[in-house]
Amino acid sequence: MSETENSDWLRPDQHTDNEAHESETVIDSAAAEAHPEIAETVAKIKALRQSIDNVDTAIVSLLAERFKYTSQVGVLKARAGFAPADYKREDYQIERLHRIAVDAGLDPDIAEMYREFVVTEAKKRHQRIADAGGDPGVLDVFA
Amino acid sequence: MSETENSDWLRPDQHTDNEAHESETVIDSAAAEAHPEIAETVAKIKALRQSIDNVDTAIVSLLAERFKYTSQVGVLKARAGFAPADYKREDYQIERLHRIAVDAGLDPDIAEMYREFVVTEAKKRHQRIADAGGDPGVLDVFA
Repeated sequence: MSETENSDWLRPDQHTDNEAHESETVIDSAAAEAHPEIAETVAKIKALRQSIDNVDTAIVSLLAERFKYTSQVGVLKARAGFAPADYKREDYQIERLHRIAVDAGLDPDIAEMYREFVVTEAKKRHQRIADAGGDPGVLDVFA
Repeated sequence: MSETENSDWLRPDQHTDNEAHESETVIDSAAAEAHPEIAETVAKIKALRQSIDNVDTAIVSLLAERFKYTSQVGVLKARAGFAPADYKREDYQIERLHRIAVDAGLDPDIAEMYREFVVTEAKKRHQRIADAGGDPGVLDVFA
């Protein structure tokens, strides 16, 4: 299934959909053909979406590596009897990612939401490893 | 402030902290010196944390690029009168990121949480741009 098949054309919402989809932008090739300026905007959005998809591929691949690393940390902590949480480490990460976000031109609130998300999920998995006596197998193939 | 200064040594929780920090792993160089096997574990965790920090640097930098792209999409949509949401696009992203996660060895639930996070934040920003008549300046330097 290609991006082309999925969102070839967009048309402004006509507010004729059901309530749940009231603010949705839906596909309509006829509208785009009738209005060249819409077709041009749609082509620009399509190009940007391809770049967004490429970024997402990179980020999901990096998240896979991140959770492999944190799974290894979880095993080491569980076997040594260390607790899953480490608040000094978290303070360090908060300060560090805030700085990187500002340098990169990203709203630091987004960086902090990202950090909370990955740290929360990593801690949940550390606890599951600890509960299983240091066996990462509790997470199956997914760490 | 370096990682070394921040979490040089870890010791298993002694459950003597206050309740809020009950499950925290805290720093204690004396404990590590007295137990070489703890020092070895701590060294391994430090090495993994450096890799985790490197991954976070890459991801936050990519998130900065992603939000720059979605800001451009937001401006194009607002000026053309398109709505912020596009559910067919979201269905496509869900299927695509699930597949990439499985290929990469990442729990697909993590990929879906990531997708929900970035799409939700991007839509909020699209709405703010639309409310400002297509002016991305409402987001200041952060898109």
